[in-house]
Amino acid sequence: MNMNFSSKLLEDAVAEFARLPGIGEKTALRMVLFLLNRTDSEVEKFAGALLRLKREVNFCRECGNISDEPVCSICTASKRDRSLICVVEDSRDVMAIENTRQYNGLYHVLGGLISPMDGIGPSDLNIGKLLERAGKEETRELILALSATMEGDTTVFYLYKKLKGIPVALSSIARGIAFGGEIEYADEVTLGRSILTRVPYKGENS
Amino acid sequence: MNMNFSSKLLEDAVAEFARLPGIGEKTALRMVLFLLNRTDSEVEKFAGALLRLKREVNFCRECGNISDEPVCSICTASKRDRSLICVVEDSRDVMAIENTRQYNGLYHVLGGLISPMDGIGPSDLNIGKLLERAGKEETRELILALSATMEGDTTVFYLYKKLKGIPVALSSIARGIAFGGEIEYADEVTLGRSILTRVPYKGENS
Repeated sequence: MNMNFSSKLLEDAVAEFARLPGIGEKTALRMVLFLLNRTDSEVEKFAGALLRLKREVNFCRECGNISDEPVCSICTASKRDRSLICVVEDSRDVMAIENTRQYNGLYHVLGGLISPMDGIGPSDLNIGKLLERAGKEETRELILALSATMEGDTTVFYLYKKLKGIPVALSSIARGIAFGGEIEYADEVTLGRSILTRVPYKGENS
Repeated sequence: MNMNFSSKLLEDAVAEFARLPGIGEKTALRMVLFLLNRTDSEVEKFAGALLRLKREVNFCRECGNISDEPVCSICTASKRDRSLICVVEDSRDVMAIENTRQYNGLYHVLGGLISPMDGIGPSDLNIGKLLERAGKEETRELILALSATMEGDTTVFYLYKKLKGIPVALSSIARGIAFGGEIEYADEVTLGRSILTRVPYKGENS
């Protein structure tokens, strides 16, 4: 839909919102009109929270995760298993894995994946620090939890080459059919791989 | 999902975005992280466009539509049919109707619908000005183009009562099965009404 804006100010604001991921012009307009109906102070609070985050945000100097302190609460936690480092693309993945309550090691946030198409090379990512951490005596294993996409695979392969010679175990999270997922709806690649990488059956609560 | 934010600043920004219509916490996080990856000037441009709109936006003093001028370009257009006024809920409806290129009259934007549930009464809407415009000699017909919801119907009924005694024709946009819509998928109310309000068949290009 080619919209006829009655106001340049409105058009500009909608254009900015339409740049957000997954937001089209119609949804952007709906958001902007919603904010226009809020009070001045509410709109200032909205814009202020974003500007403050952008100006004051810190990335943990150890793992690269978003943090209000120089070193994040996970890296400073005394009860965490410091021999494990789970390598992820961004802070969302840290939150998702933390929510499972199944992992008690540390993280390393790359801040993206290698993607020549988008002009993102290894030097744009938080890889130097990862190699440094991998080389520490306390580090025993790196768990690669990257997306099963071309960019994820490229990044895994790059890390694999860079980590050669560093005495650290490398693992990748398990791929397969989701729990509760129906086999007939699974994509062919996942289904095929899940048969090839089948695991011995050990009874219910293995 | 109950998210564990590693940063209060991040949490605040996500909470603000999650207030937007149709945006949950996960999508809000995705948007905020997207903006965090942009440059400072891009984020300032985003926030600035919104703040400028909120501070400088004008509503046409004739029809109530969003406008950069005191009177909007539709109300000042010399080629518009000034005897017709299409009454709509908000600026989005004006854009949607303008996009059809089927209407050449004026508009009147109410700025909402009567909704006791949301605490919106007639005095919160741009109704006084509508009654004034309806009473003008040049005005011949008001076309009510409001949503077919309880709020829309309440508003139509309120306007109908208020307009009694003012010599102006009242009409409502046609309701029925959408062009290209399949009858078996139409909801019962629409289908039932579309039979009751059937129109004589006049051949293809009537």
